[in-house]
Amino acid sequence: MPYFDAASAAPLHPVARQALLASLDEGWADPARLYREGRRARLLLDAAREAAAEAVGCRPDELVFTPSGTRAVHAGISGSLAGRRRVGNRLVVSAVEHSSVLHAAESHAATGGAVTEVPVGRTGAVDPDVFAAALGAGDAGDAGTVALACLQSANHEVGTEQPVAEVAEACRAAGVPLLVDAAQSLGWGPVEGGWSLLAASAHKWGGPAGVGLLAVRKGVRFAPQGPLDERESGRAPGFENLPGIVAAAASLRAVRAEAAAEGARLRALVDRIRARVPELVPDVEVVGDLVRRLPHLVTFSCLYVDGETVLHELDREGFSVSSGSSCTSSTLTPSHVLRAMGVLSEGNVRVSLPAGTAEEDVDRFLDVLPAVVAGVRERLGAPTRPSAAASAPGGGSLVVDALGRRCPIPVIELAKVIGDVPVGGTVTVLADDAAARLDIPAWCEMRGQEYVGESPAAGGGVAYVVRRTS
Amino acid sequence: MPYFDAASAAPLHPVARQALLASLDEGWADPARLYREGRRARLLLDAAREAAAEAVGCRPDELVFTPSGTRAVHAGISGSLAGRRRVGNRLVVSAVEHSSVLHAAESHAATGGAVTEVPVGRTGAVDPDVFAAALGAGDAGDAGTVALACLQSANHEVGTEQPVAEVAEACRAAGVPLLVDAAQSLGWGPVEGGWSLLAASAHKWGGPAGVGLLAVRKGVRFAPQGPLDERESGRAPGFENLPGIVAAAASLRAVRAEAAAEGARLRALVDRIRARVPELVPDVEVVGDLVRRLPHLVTFSCLYVDGETVLHELDREGFSVSSGSSCTSSTLTPSHVLRAMGVLSEGNVRVSLPAGTAEEDVDRFLDVLPAVVAGVRERLGAPTRPSAAASAPGGGSLVVDALGRRCPIPVIELAKVIGDVPVGGTVTVLADDAAARLDIPAWCEMRGQEYVGESPAAGGGVAYVVRRTS
Repeated sequence: MPYFDAASAAPLHPVARQALLASLDEGWADPARLYREGRRARLLLDAAREAAAEAVGCRPDELVFTPSGTRAVHAGISGSLAGRRRVGNRLVVSAVEHSSVLHAAESHAATGGAVTEVPVGRTGAVDPDVFAAALGAGDAGDAGTVALACLQSANHEVGTEQPVAEVAEACRAAGVPLLVDAAQSLGWGPVEGGWSLLAASAHKWGGPAGVGLLAVRKGVRFAPQGPLDERESGRAPGFENLPGIVAAAASLRAVRAEAAAEGARLRALVDRIRARVPELVPDVEVVGDLVRRLPHLVTFSCLYVDGETVLHELDREGFSVSSGSSCTSSTLTPSHVLRAMGVLSEGNVRVSLPAGTAEEDVDRFLDVLPAVVAGVRERLGAPTRPSAAASAPGGGSLVVDALGRRCPIPVIELAKVIGDVPVGGTVTVLADDAAARLDIPAWCEMRGQEYVGESPAAGGGVAYVVRRTS
Repeated sequence: MPYFDAASAAPLHPVARQALLASLDEGWADPARLYREGRRARLLLDAAREAAAEAVGCRPDELVFTPSGTRAVHAGISGSLAGRRRVGNRLVVSAVEHSSVLHAAESHAATGGAVTEVPVGRTGAVDPDVFAAALGAGDAGDAGTVALACLQSANHEVGTEQPVAEVAEACRAAGVPLLVDAAQSLGWGPVEGGWSLLAASAHKWGGPAGVGLLAVRKGVRFAPQGPLDERESGRAPGFENLPGIVAAAASLRAVRAEAAAEGARLRALVDRIRARVPELVPDVEVVGDLVRRLPHLVTFSCLYVDGETVLHELDREGFSVSSGSSCTSSTLTPSHVLRAMGVLSEGNVRVSLPAGTAEEDVDRFLDVLPAVVAGVRERLGAPTRPSAAASAPGGGSLVVDALGRRCPIPVIELAKVIGDVPVGGTVTVLADDAAARLDIPAWCEMRGQEYVGESPAAGGGVAYVVRRTS
């Protein structure tokens, strides 16, 4: 049963399992104690720290283990902001960071801090020059010098690699520490460039859940927040999850040894998906950067389907994938990453291949996908290409009322009637679904129609205006 | 090789190991995902929560899993204080709480909160009436109504059970929520009484490291602090350590099933240690409550020895125990628990028997202990009973300069010369070791001499005055 959601959690690597088992017997005692069980635990902890530090590219005394990647990010950001409080109070983040970073930024803002969000382009990458500009003094009316900048090494939803080395150089020039969230990439290789702090999560590389890591370079000002605790240099309170830590470090070393070969193999499989999906499925947008991307991850969005039904149908076919569509979110808003990129969110599918994915499984995925999408479209009454004849009965403009209808219905209704207005005429879609704001412009871009703009409509909705250009 | 430090960390229970192994294969995926691996993980998480809630005595939706007992305490205290911020800003804790509670209290005080520490008696228990009195309005000049009270179910260093039910009743009457740190007792049984919040730690009951739990009763005001996260009802950020959680819940159920029988068996072994140690080793104080105590834990202190050397010698003999003596602490201060109780801290030994401890191992411990203590005393030149003859060459008073000497030397020097002053005369000990403040009065109590008091001495030390009364 092919599991294609490694970016959420990778199945446990065999080396992790082996190391975990061994350290259940050897590593359960308190490493702070001086008796033999404690000394044994301390040796295991020290060895794990050395192995992890080597893989990260830092000194062992710069690295602590945390209970998760999320906690590593939270501790890294709060500790770093507090350490530089006298210098400034502004946090700079990219718009496509993981929610752990963005929630830490919200928390900073809620306690009086300033936050600057750096936008991304259509591939999901920040522009180093734009990022560098954000490191300057704060906007008028918005207090403070930049205390910390955060940039992921690669995006978790679309796989795009960020220009970390260039941004790190800009941060160095501006005297601002850079925290890199390396959760998605650390298994594939060390993060290049002069970062100051780095966070990662073991279950993303095939280690066990319950282990993250936080590296803080010597010389970076850092003041751990929250109650004092002596463990992990005071940066990660609570009794160490030693068997998990040992398994995390051992599996990081193991996946690194396999990374070059397995990365090349998975990259070829992802290339196949990237090339074949638009051929096999009409009205698809493959998103993210074609070249600068994680080897194992590809994301595409399908017009006229809802992500939840596609996921459900793929699950029935045995494929586990994830989606950034609004219908799969508890808040009914599309993924902030797709929004920041300005790409289609409806019918969104993220495929992230775990190490060892069989070629046949990828081929079978490509076999079943077209029928799955076609089936959902048929049930939703989606238009088939080409759209209707150019003779418009209603004259130069039409209004479509999609109020109260959820994604992908507003876009389907738009596509159904665009052929009913003459070239130069407009269709106005009334909608109150959050995804429409992203997906109507994205549909225009995909279909070569002109997106005119939006304005408030009666009844709490929004009127989206589209001009037919072809 | 007998390990007698279960109160630090218990060896993994076989059921925990079994459950962990099973859920490594079944429970690695994200329980928030809708595909089959995610649904399977969700089922495991739900079942673990139900089992843990049943053992705790709460509803499943009142209980979340945290990465450690320490994190459960920190989250419980900060969330509860924030939830009641409009009501008041005072935190009441007992003086013998675990460091995780006391550090959270320090953190509260550092951010402008008020803290009241409730003292304990010589057995280590709070007096419910004294605790109740502390729930009233704050002292003059010290702002605020009580927002939260914390009391451990049983003490981690001396095993004394606290009167939780009585204190919970007092809290209910005062309208103050009570957080119970049940880390040491939860494996033995549920916490009685009307507590509002409860924290515990799996590796104390034979579960794996990396799992704590926090229960918050419905109706208790609670506002989680730090960045938002959707997992665990927003109370414990980060990807769930599911294999650990499953193992924790399974082992809690297993240890509970064995608790009555194993508790009775260990209680008899501890009774044997309590009775035999003072017979076998001269100048020993067994501390804690004789009756209201954990079944598996006993603590005693030996005059004229240092805890670190005793631990080291016992480790050489194959016994792993811990100590609250200052020489085993990184801060060179005696355990805050022993200090609050006002009992001897030098030569302190805590024995906490894990489930399954063999009777022979306890007997062998009693065999080797006397020679270990005698050996250390001999090397330190400790006085042997009875102390020297009553004829005093130096007249009515003597001064002993122990400045710069560490525990147990100041007490040894005092004991050496007490016989050199006449009954009614005094010995003044000059010392700058933190343990002297506790151990000189404790020595007086043990030896029936009068502790007169202390005053500052030249050179940064303290002059402790003892009057010979027998």
